[in-house]
Amino acid sequence: MELSGKNILGYATSAKGKTLFYASNPSTGSQLEPPYHEATLEEVDEAIQLAESAFTVYREKTGVEKAVFLETIADELAALEQEIVTIGSQETGLPAGRLTGELGRTTGQLRLFASLLRDGSWVDARIDTADPNRTPVPKPDTRQMQIALGPVGVFGASNFPLAFSAAGGDTASGLAAGCSVVVKAHPAHPGTSELVGNAISKAAKKCEMPNGVFSMVHGASIAVGQAVVRHPFIKAIGFTGSFRGGKSLFDEAARREEPIPVYAEMGSSNPVFVLPGALKENYEALATGLSGSVQLGVGQFCTNPGLTIVPDQEEGNLFENVLKDSISDAESATMLTGSIQNAYNSGLEKLKAKEAVTSVSFGKKSELEAQGVPEVLSVSANDFLADKELEEEVFGPSTLLVRTQDKEEMMKIAKGLNGHLTATVQGTEADLVEYAELLKILERKVGRLLINGFPTGVEVCHSMVHGGPFPATSDSRMTSVGTAAITRFTRPICYQNFPDALLPDELKSDNPLNILRLENGAYVLPN
Amino acid sequence: MELSGKNILGYATSAKGKTLFYASNPSTGSQLEPPYHEATLEEVDEAIQLAESAFTVYREKTGVEKAVFLETIADELAALEQEIVTIGSQETGLPAGRLTGELGRTTGQLRLFASLLRDGSWVDARIDTADPNRTPVPKPDTRQMQIALGPVGVFGASNFPLAFSAAGGDTASGLAAGCSVVVKAHPAHPGTSELVGNAISKAAKKCEMPNGVFSMVHGASIAVGQAVVRHPFIKAIGFTGSFRGGKSLFDEAARREEPIPVYAEMGSSNPVFVLPGALKENYEALATGLSGSVQLGVGQFCTNPGLTIVPDQEEGNLFENVLKDSISDAESATMLTGSIQNAYNSGLEKLKAKEAVTSVSFGKKSELEAQGVPEVLSVSANDFLADKELEEEVFGPSTLLVRTQDKEEMMKIAKGLNGHLTATVQGTEADLVEYAELLKILERKVGRLLINGFPTGVEVCHSMVHGGPFPATSDSRMTSVGTAAITRFTRPICYQNFPDALLPDELKSDNPLNILRLENGAYVLPN
Repeated sequence: MELSGKNILGYATSAKGKTLFYASNPSTGSQLEPPYHEATLEEVDEAIQLAESAFTVYREKTGVEKAVFLETIADELAALEQEIVTIGSQETGLPAGRLTGELGRTTGQLRLFASLLRDGSWVDARIDTADPNRTPVPKPDTRQMQIALGPVGVFGASNFPLAFSAAGGDTASGLAAGCSVVVKAHPAHPGTSELVGNAISKAAKKCEMPNGVFSMVHGASIAVGQAVVRHPFIKAIGFTGSFRGGKSLFDEAARREEPIPVYAEMGSSNPVFVLPGALKENYEALATGLSGSVQLGVGQFCTNPGLTIVPDQEEGNLFENVLKDSISDAESATMLTGSIQNAYNSGLEKLKAKEAVTSVSFGKKSELEAQGVPEVLSVSANDFLADKELEEEVFGPSTLLVRTQDKEEMMKIAKGLNGHLTATVQGTEADLVEYAELLKILERKVGRLLINGFPTGVEVCHSMVHGGPFPATSDSRMTSVGTAAITRFTRPICYQNFPDALLPDELKSDNPLNILRLENGAYVLPN
Repeated sequence: MELSGKNILGYATSAKGKTLFYASNPSTGSQLEPPYHEATLEEVDEAIQLAESAFTVYREKTGVEKAVFLETIADELAALEQEIVTIGSQETGLPAGRLTGELGRTTGQLRLFASLLRDGSWVDARIDTADPNRTPVPKPDTRQMQIALGPVGVFGASNFPLAFSAAGGDTASGLAAGCSVVVKAHPAHPGTSELVGNAISKAAKKCEMPNGVFSMVHGASIAVGQAVVRHPFIKAIGFTGSFRGGKSLFDEAARREEPIPVYAEMGSSNPVFVLPGALKENYEALATGLSGSVQLGVGQFCTNPGLTIVPDQEEGNLFENVLKDSISDAESATMLTGSIQNAYNSGLEKLKAKEAVTSVSFGKKSELEAQGVPEVLSVSANDFLADKELEEEVFGPSTLLVRTQDKEEMMKIAKGLNGHLTATVQGTEADLVEYAELLKILERKVGRLLINGFPTGVEVCHSMVHGGPFPATSDSRMTSVGTAAITRFTRPICYQNFPDALLPDELKSDNPLNILRLENGAYVLPN
């Protein structure tokens, strides 16, 4: 399949801009063809105007119609597996196996949202029937459900060219919610995005969805993204990436005449607390497990365990030694882009420039381009507590060991944490009883709390929370992974005193969609 | 009961500040004793420090314990009815009947949230169980529920001294969510707030709730409110009031190092669309009904119908005449404060200064203080469409008739609307078929859409939405009235691979609280 380098504006493609950029192969540093046309401001406006007019039609589609659309996107993507994996590997340096897996996750995610729509109960239908005889005033008939917000803007993420990009979780949940979607493709994988974007367009046509239900604009400069966030028709933004990028979108959106929600997942260092009993019983497996989690995907996951809190007991030293050896033996690997690799290296340099931080070990260096070399660093709890910068994410395959003298220091570290996506506690049954307070502290700091696992690997399911308090995200009330992500793009509406025929099916008295509803305070299940 | 004029800091009272202010009786303009001590910044900090330490305890209370607390607050308030109505009438000029009704609504609201907690299902529990045999990676056990955000700040509203003030909907939903609450009392009814705040404190002690679960600070200047919004321990803000006030809190919160959600209900002009058939059949009753809704509570409701769109047919003139006569006969009444009355008058003057706007009629003027005189104004659709200012709320007992030449003009008006709390359509069955598109347009503009009713009167129930797109509120995803308001103060958390004993009861495998849950994708109802 030939790549065009063009923007996708509804059912058409467009290349009016004169600013061009190229993807590059991070493994070789070589430029990849074709050139991509950065969208002009007029093209961004056209995409969003189309999204607005498509929205008025798309929001009225039934759950089943939207489900079929999502399933068709999944089918189209699956049919393109070979091309997507080929182009994706060139653009990201990710191995084919990873991309195949990520494509499966992406289509699975679309199908999961489709199943949510087929079930229909996600709209949180609530009905309170009238009581004309109530005194002093009659009780009206009121019925509530979630409806779509409007056209939404989605920013592709560098580290998940499929699962968090053109057809990723934000697009899937936005379309599921009933919103039209305008994607700003990530400039590090524009070809992958084009393939995926075309697949979505093709599915939209097949399913007779309105022109403009999906568009995708390219841009290597910030102007394109800003134009998306500033457009008055855009009603919400989904983003996964750096703190700096996410926070600037948040600020931009808050400054609009009409502020809009920005769901920015901005990463974190995902502390892992190793408790004394588990450390004693199990230091070897824990160190090996941690080493694997640190290196997974060359550390380029938002949930990478970048902080490991380990007691200063004898087994803590043994743990450190096992980890040291494991990391020394580790191979370097290609990172997603040269600039990500640069940021990783300078993040490590910044840490190592601190007197309090020592390098424990690092992996094998390679002469290839853009290599991420795994590394373990160490610092005392006391020094860690004195320097807030040590908590910041270093995006890549490293972890900072924080060695604690006692339980009190561990609690202090937990209490002092900023918001994170995850926190993990490794403990025996006895540990967990003794450190019950630690779990309570961490509950306030994260979106997901794990016991005896590692934070990498985010399950796409109903109960997942990929979110957490600021600065991990800009909105802790939401998740960007799992079916609950759909409510980021909806709001409740109440219909008062509506004739049954004018109500949406979800709220009609005889419950034609057979969904779960809260009727006069009692939950009524589908048959 | 003697009023102290002091701030409530947890279980103590405090009056360290030297800045004093007084309430005044709007009916007479006379100053009311005692003086109130504006909280110092240290007192605000103390209240919030207490709220933070109380939160760590309060959030662990069971649903039933929190329910008993809310019910005890309701009992304490009911026991104080006479004092509250007496002081409330002096401070607000509202008649005793209205305050008695509002107190009933306030206690009813607390009891409704208590019933929600007793039921327990509001936490949206979701369970996906493990599958260790899944390939390529085992599926973990993940469980999600809503937990409390942290200490929250609540701003009392001038127009509901009870239902939206110290023990109003924001406080009730915040405490129900498991948050500690710091109220900034509205300076127009500090005595009413003191009575109510003391009742909450008394209930907290009776129920052995932690010191600091509730505090209340006074302030007539903006410094006190700003200090609440800026405090790093405060995790969300509830507010009902003017656009200017709400938007400034929103901006303040967005500028924090850690931005926090602000739920500001900022009012709207709540358009009422009268369709041709209904107008023809029913102009007299519609005009009379509208007149009543406009005057209700001296027009001091956020849902007051400030805009009425009426076709320029013969019965439109008859409708206007009936309304004209009804308003001419109407008595003026005392508004909540002198400054609200001034703002009402200057809002009307600003409208009448426009060449396009004419005054249809106004009510009887009185020599008493702070009188709101009902008024009807009129403008052509064409002129309305040319001037966005005409859509702005004029807080008080007035409505602006917008006379439309045809269906197209009506649609244009609907399409051009900003966000509103409500919109209302008055129509016959045939009208509603012909104007189906109007309902679709209005759906995107409001939080509540009514057919053949009037927007005043906001039912406190599960299905209410008192919210809507900006600028009606700062966050259209939420409601400030009804049980769904609780999720303004919560966020989801996911527990991964937790031993059953360490899970919250809501998520334990045998469902000890007997609540609705989503288990492996299927809703499971309580027995």
